[in-house]
Amino acid sequence: MPKPTLTIGLIGYQFMGKAHSNAYRQVNHFFDLPMQIRMKTICGRNAGAVQAAAENLGWEQSETDWRKVLADPEIDVIDISTPGNSHCEIAVAAAEAGKAVWCEKPIGNTLAEAQTMFDAVQKAGVPHAVFHNYRKAPAVALAKKMIAAGELGEIHHMRATYLQDWIADPAFPLVWRLQKETAGSGAHGDINSHIIDLGRFLVGEFDEVCGTLHTFIKERPIPDSDAVGTVTVDDAAMFLARFKNGAIGTFEASRFAVGRRNYNRFEINGSKGSVVFNLERMNELEYYNAADPAEAQGFRLIQVTESVHPYAGHYWPSGHIIGYEHTFVNLVADAVTAMASGKNPSPSLEDGFQNQRVLDAVERSHASRSWISL
Amino acid sequence: MPKPTLTIGLIGYQFMGKAHSNAYRQVNHFFDLPMQIRMKTICGRNAGAVQAAAENLGWEQSETDWRKVLADPEIDVIDISTPGNSHCEIAVAAAEAGKAVWCEKPIGNTLAEAQTMFDAVQKAGVPHAVFHNYRKAPAVALAKKMIAAGELGEIHHMRATYLQDWIADPAFPLVWRLQKETAGSGAHGDINSHIIDLGRFLVGEFDEVCGTLHTFIKERPIPDSDAVGTVTVDDAAMFLARFKNGAIGTFEASRFAVGRRNYNRFEINGSKGSVVFNLERMNELEYYNAADPAEAQGFRLIQVTESVHPYAGHYWPSGHIIGYEHTFVNLVADAVTAMASGKNPSPSLEDGFQNQRVLDAVERSHASRSWISL
Amino acid sequence: MPKPTLTIGLIGYQFMGKAHSNAYRQVNHFFDLPMQIRMKTICGRNAGAVQAAAENLGWEQSETDWRKVLADPEIDVIDISTPGNSHCEIAVAAAEAGKAVWCEKPIGNTLAEAQTMFDAVQKAGVPHAVFHNYRKAPAVALAKKMIAAGELGEIHHMRATYLQDWIADPAFPLVWRLQKETAGSGAHGDINSHIIDLGRFLVGEFDEVCGTLHTFIKERPIPDSDAVGTVTVDDAAMFLARFKNGAIGTFEASRFAVGRRNYNRFEINGSKGSVVFNLERMNELEYYNAADPAEAQGFRLIQVTESVHPYAGHYWPSGHIIGYEHTFVNLVADAVTAMASGKNPSPSLEDGFQNQRVLDAVERSHASRSWISL
Amino acid sequence: MPKPTLTIGLIGYQFMGKAHSNAYRQVNHFFDLPMQIRMKTICGRNAGAVQAAAENLGWEQSETDWRKVLADPEIDVIDISTPGNSHCEIAVAAAEAGKAVWCEKPIGNTLAEAQTMFDAVQKAGVPHAVFHNYRKAPAVALAKKMIAAGELGEIHHMRATYLQDWIADPAFPLVWRLQKETAGSGAHGDINSHIIDLGRFLVGEFDEVCGTLHTFIKERPIPDSDAVGTVTVDDAAMFLARFKNGAIGTFEASRFAVGRRNYNRFEINGSKGSVVFNLERMNELEYYNAADPAEAQGFRLIQVTESVHPYAGHYWPSGHIIGYEHTFVNLVADAVTAMASGKNPSPSLEDGFQNQRVLDAVERSHASRSWISL
Repeated sequence: MPKPTLTIGLIGYQFMGKAHSNAYRQVNHFFDLPMQIRMKTICGRNAGAVQAAAENLGWEQSETDWRKVLADPEIDVIDISTPGNSHCEIAVAAAEAGKAVWCEKPIGNTLAEAQTMFDAVQKAGVPHAVFHNYRKAPAVALAKKMIAAGELGEIHHMRATYLQDWIADPAFPLVWRLQKETAGSGAHGDINSHIIDLGRFLVGEFDEVCGTLHTFIKERPIPDSDAVGTVTVDDAAMFLARFKNGAIGTFEASRFAVGRRNYNRFEINGSKGSVVFNLERMNELEYYNAADPAEAQGFRLIQVTESVHPYAGHYWPSGHIIGYEHTFVNLVADAVTAMASGKNPSPSLEDGFQNQRVLDAVERSHASRSWISL
Repeated sequence: MPKPTLTIGLIGYQFMGKAHSNAYRQVNHFFDLPMQIRMKTICGRNAGAVQAAAENLGWEQSETDWRKVLADPEIDVIDISTPGNSHCEIAVAAAEAGKAVWCEKPIGNTLAEAQTMFDAVQKAGVPHAVFHNYRKAPAVALAKKMIAAGELGEIHHMRATYLQDWIADPAFPLVWRLQKETAGSGAHGDINSHIIDLGRFLVGEFDEVCGTLHTFIKERPIPDSDAVGTVTVDDAAMFLARFKNGAIGTFEASRFAVGRRNYNRFEINGSKGSVVFNLERMNELEYYNAADPAEAQGFRLIQVTESVHPYAGHYWPSGHIIGYEHTFVNLVADAVTAMASGKNPSPSLEDGFQNQRVLDAVERSHASRSWISL
Repeated sequence: MPKPTLTIGLIGYQFMGKAHSNAYRQVNHFFDLPMQIRMKTICGRNAGAVQAAAENLGWEQSETDWRKVLADPEIDVIDISTPGNSHCEIAVAAAEAGKAVWCEKPIGNTLAEAQTMFDAVQKAGVPHAVFHNYRKAPAVALAKKMIAAGELGEIHHMRATYLQDWIADPAFPLVWRLQKETAGSGAHGDINSHIIDLGRFLVGEFDEVCGTLHTFIKERPIPDSDAVGTVTVDDAAMFLARFKNGAIGTFEASRFAVGRRNYNRFEINGSKGSVVFNLERMNELEYYNAADPAEAQGFRLIQVTESVHPYAGHYWPSGHIIGYEHTFVNLVADAVTAMASGKNPSPSLEDGFQNQRVLDAVERSHASRSWISL
Repeated sequence: MPKPTLTIGLIGYQFMGKAHSNAYRQVNHFFDLPMQIRMKTICGRNAGAVQAAAENLGWEQSETDWRKVLADPEIDVIDISTPGNSHCEIAVAAAEAGKAVWCEKPIGNTLAEAQTMFDAVQKAGVPHAVFHNYRKAPAVALAKKMIAAGELGEIHHMRATYLQDWIADPAFPLVWRLQKETAGSGAHGDINSHIIDLGRFLVGEFDEVCGTLHTFIKERPIPDSDAVGTVTVDDAAMFLARFKNGAIGTFEASRFAVGRRNYNRFEINGSKGSVVFNLERMNELEYYNAADPAEAQGFRLIQVTESVHPYAGHYWPSGHIIGYEHTFVNLVADAVTAMASGKNPSPSLEDGFQNQRVLDAVERSHASRSWISL
C-alpha cells in the first residue's frame, strides 16, 4: 500500500529554497516516514529563474504567483523561504487557505508581524513550523537530550556566539540583507535569532535581556551603481540575558568577526556538567561530566555519529559525518512525523513568535540603554 | 534540449550501495553536468531486500541476476559494489558486454584478480573507474592542488593512519569481512587501501615497502551459532615505504584503535610546507607555509568550504559543511564529466590495480619479513 | 663589576607570594638584566608559617610586621601580595617611605582605595607596578605587537571570558575570597579584572559598559563550624562594552563554569585579521590574516616559543613550552629593566587604577540596570 | 636540623646544562625532599664560557677539567650533559670514583659504550640515572599510572612520532649533531631515543623491530668555511615494532617535518581505552574510556594540572600550566627521593642501556633490510 502523500509548495528559490528542496528530495530516502513528500510547485517572481530552479532542485513545476500556489488544492504545505518582508502576508493567506505553514526564520520582520502570523495559524487551526534547523543537528539534539535528562544538573550559564565575516569588507555592496525594509534587521534577526532559538530550546525561556546593536560600516556601494547608500541594519548585536530558571547568558552575533565563517558556537554550564557545540564542527559535541573521577576529568569530544545518537542512525556508520544540509532533512523528517500523527511540528510558529519577542526586547533594550523584561 | 542520459546498473545494495545510490540521486542537483544520471536497476541476490532497496534508494527496478543487468542495452555503467570476491567475474563480464565498469575498492581480492580486471577493461576499451572516494573530499583535492602547484616543495614525508575500532571487542562475531575467502584481507584491503590511494594520489608511486599484518583476536563467535571460527584476515596492518620521488612514509590501518571511529588521517611534509587531513573533520585542511613570517608561522586551519575550493562551490556558503556522502557525489560528477568528454574517469581501474600491487607487496613483505620492491 | 642590587620586601606568602618569589629567584638566571634581585624579607602575620615560607621560597629572612619591612633602608621595592583589603594602607605607607610599590591586582577593594594608592605613588614620585601578569605571556605580547603594528587593522570586536569552576559545588566553604570585606568582590575583581586589563592593553580604553553580577549560591558553610554564612560577593559577572576607538566587546568571568579550570580566553577581530588566546594553552596564539590567499585562509596556530617571539628567546628552543609562572618572571624582568633606565614599569598602578574604574562602572551598571560611561 | 646535602658536579653547560641547572636550583623550592641540592661545580672546556655559565646558572664555581670534578670528595653526583662521544669515558671514571652517575640520553654513541657504562656503574655499585625527562611530564606519568592500573586493558597499539624541522633548510650548517663521530646518530639517537623510552616505559620491552634511517640532505656547508661536508647521520628514522606483550607499534623521528617544532606525540590503544600525548601541549592528556556510556563516548581532554595528578600538586592551582623545564625538576625530585631511601633512581642507566639496544637493533635492521629480534 503506498504511503499517503504530503505535497509541498515552496515560495522562494535562493539559498533557503535550495536547502529546503534538498531536504524534501532526500528525506524519504533516509527516514522511513509515514508520508511520502511530493515536490509539486516552486514559486518565484522571475519566471525563467524559477523554472530553472524547478529543474535543478527537483520540482514538478514552477509558478510566479504565490497566490496560485496557495489556491492549489493538492498542496498541503506552504513553505515560505522568501525574504522576511513577505512572510507575513503569505503566511496569513496560506493559513486562511487551510494550508500547513512552514516558515523560515525570523518569521517576521517585526514582532507585530510575527504575532499576526502566529494568530493566523492558531485561528485557522493549521499545522505550522519554523525552520530553526540547528535544533536538528545531531549534536544539538544530543545536548537537549542530556539536559532534559538532568545530566547537566541545574543550568547556570549559556554563552552563545554566531560569528560570520562576509560583510567585513567596506566595499561589500548594499544588498537586500543590509536594508531594514526587506531584512528587518541585520545580524540580529539573521543569526542572533538562531542562537536565541538554541537558548530557548536548551535552557528555557528568557526572563530579561540587555543588549546593543552596532553598525560598523554605515554606507556601502549600491549594486550596479556609482552611488552609495545607507546601511539600515546592524552589523553586530550582543546582549546579556537572564533566563526564567535562573541561568544567565551572553549572546553575540556579528558579520564582522574576520576569520569566522559560520561560527555558531555555544557553551552551556550546569551544576553537573557542561556541553559545547560549534556548527563548523557540527558532528561533534564536547561534554564535561563533573562526576568523572578526579584524575580523569575533562571535556570529551563526542563524535555524534553513532547509531545511538539522535538522527545519526539514519545516515552512515560511526565516524562518517553528515553536513549542514542534513539539519533540514532531520527537521522535515520530524515535521512529517508530527503531522502524520496529528501533532504540530516542533519548532513551531509559536517558537518563531517567542523568538521574535526576544529579538524585539533586545532592540528595545538597545533603544532604552537598559534591561527589558519579557 | 534535454541532456543525454547516463544509465546506471548497480550491483550491491548494502553500505556502498546506499552511498552510491545517494550520489546518483544527488549529483545532477548540485553539478551542472553534460549528462543526466538515470538510476535504472539495482541488483542483489535477495529479491525482497533488493526490491525494498530499489524503493528506498530511488531505483526504477530491482534485479537478482547481475548477468541480466549486464545484458540490458540501455545500461551504460555497471557499478560493482558487492563484496570483493565477486568483483572480478562481474567486471570482466561487464567489460565484455561493452559497459563502463565502475568498481568499489579494493578492486579484487588478489593482485591476479585486479590484473585480470584491468586487462579486461583495457581490452574492451570501456571506461573504468574505482571508488577511491576520499580523493574527492574538498580538503584532499585542495591538498592535491597545492602539491601539484609546488606549494609544498619537494615531499619528504607522508604519515598516514586509518584507524577504526569496530571489532576491538572479542565478542564481535565472525562476519564476512573477517574471512579471507570473501574479503580478501582485513584492515589491510579495506582501509589501508584508502591511504595507499591517498599516498599514490598526493605523493606518487611507491618504490618499496616493508610491513606486517597482525591479528589480535584469532577466534570469534560464528553468527547465529554456539561455535567459534577462525579469523583469517588481519586486524591491523602497518608498513614503511619509500616513494619513487625520494619521499618516505609510514602507513597503518587498524580495526583495534579503541576510540577511533573513522580516523583516516594523513600528514605530508614537504620542503616548503605541510598539510594535515583527518576524515573525521573532512571539511578542514591544516596547512603550514614555511614562507610565512618567522613570527607568524603555524598550521592554518583552512575550512575547505569556500567557493574557490574544489567542489565546495557546488554546495553551500562558506562554513556550511558537507558530509561523507558528498565525496561520492563529487566522484560521480568527475566521472560523468570525464566520460562526456571522452576521457577515462580518475581514479581508474588502473589506480585500483596499482593500489593492489602495493597491498600485495606489503603482504609479501609480511611473509618474507623484509623490504619488497615494486 | 657586580651589578647594582634591587632589594625586595614581599608582603604576603600564599599563592601570589609563591609565584612572585619564584619570579625573583629565577629572573636573573634567564634575563641579562642591569640589576640583580636580592630577596631580603618576606612578611606575614603567622610567624611560623612565614618563616617556613622564607626557607621554601628563598628569602633571607621573615618578618611579621609589614611596617618594619617598609622601615628597612636596604629595601627598594615593596611587593604587596596580601588580600585586597590591606593593599591601600600598605601601598600608601610604602610610597611615603619612598619605596617602589609593586602591587597585586585588583589594587584596591574599591575605586576610592585605588585612587588613594595611585595618588600616593604619584605624590611620592616612586616607581609603581601592578601584577597584571597575563600581559607578559609571550602569546599575549605577540598579539599586542601585531595590533600595535596595525596587522589586525581597525579593531571591531573583543570577546573575553575568564572561566573557572572551583566554587561550583554548593558545599565549598565560605572562604575569604567569598566575603566582600576582605575580597572586595568575587569573580569580578579577581578574574574579570584580568580580562579588563587585557582589553585595555590590546584594544584600548573603555568608553562605556553595561553589566550584571550574579551570585548563584547565596549561603555556604562557614569553615570549621556547623553554621552557614552569606556569600557577599558575585559568583559571576558579565558585561557589554564600547571602547573609545569604536570597538565593542563582551566580557564574562565566572567561578561556576563547570569543567573550566582557568579558561582565560579572548578573541579580537579587526578589519585585517583576528587573534585568539587561551591561558590554558598559553604558549599558543591563533592568528587569522585576511590577506592570505583566498584558498588558504584560516586561523594559524602559532607556537609562541621561537627566539623571535617576545620573551621566548630567554628560555628554551622552539616548541619547548614555558608555564604560568614565567609570566611573572617576564613581568619582573620588564619592571627591573624599566626601573634601571629611570622609567616606570608597565603595567603601573595607573593601569591598576584605570582597571578599577572599569570594575566600578560595571558594579554601578549592575545597580542602575543601565549603561555607564567612563 | 638541616637536611643532608646532595652535591652536584655538572659536566656540560649548553642546552642540557641550562635545563639541568634550572632543575637543581628549583627542585627544593617546589618539593619537600629529604636532601638539599648543592650546586657546586659546573665544568666545560672553555674557561670563560663556563665561568659565565656558572654565574648565570647558579653554580658555586666552574672547572675546565672534568677529572678534577670527579676528584672532588664533596661531590656526590656527576651529571654528564656533554655531547655523546664523551659520555662513556666520563661515566666510567665517575663510577670508579664512587660517584653517582646521572647521564643525558642516549647514554652512549654505540651499544658497546652503553654496555660499558652500565657495567661500570653496576660494578662500582653507585647510583645511576638517565635523563629521559619526558617520563616525568605529569601527563605521561598519569598515562603510566592508568596503564599500570589496567585502565587501558591489554595494550594493542602504540604509534609514536617525534617530529622537528630545524634542519629542513639545506643551508643549515654541518654542526656537531650532524656528524656521527660526535653525535653517534641523528634524529635516531637524539629523539627516537625519547619515544623508544616512552614505549618501554608505557608499553613494555621491545621484542623485534624493523626500520630504516634516511638522510635527505647529504652535504651541508661547514660553519665558518666556504666548503661543504658530508652529513654522516640520519635526518629521519622510522621503524615498526612488536613488543613482548603482543602490542605492535610504529615509531618515527624526523628533523624534516616542516612545521613541527617539538612534536613528541604518542597514542596508545588498549582493549579498554586509549591515551594520546603531545609534548607541545604537555599539560594535557587525551583519554578515551571504552566503558563510557554509548552515547557519551569520546576522547577526554584532561588538563593534568590538578593536585591529584602526578607532580602537579607541587606547582600551581588547577589549570595553571607548567613548562618543559619542569620535567627535569620532577626527574631530579624523583632521583633525590630514590637515593635518599637507598633505591636507585628510575629511569636508570639500565634503561639507557636497554634503550640503546633498541636503537642499535633498528640500525642493524636498516643495514639488513629485515626484522631484528631483541
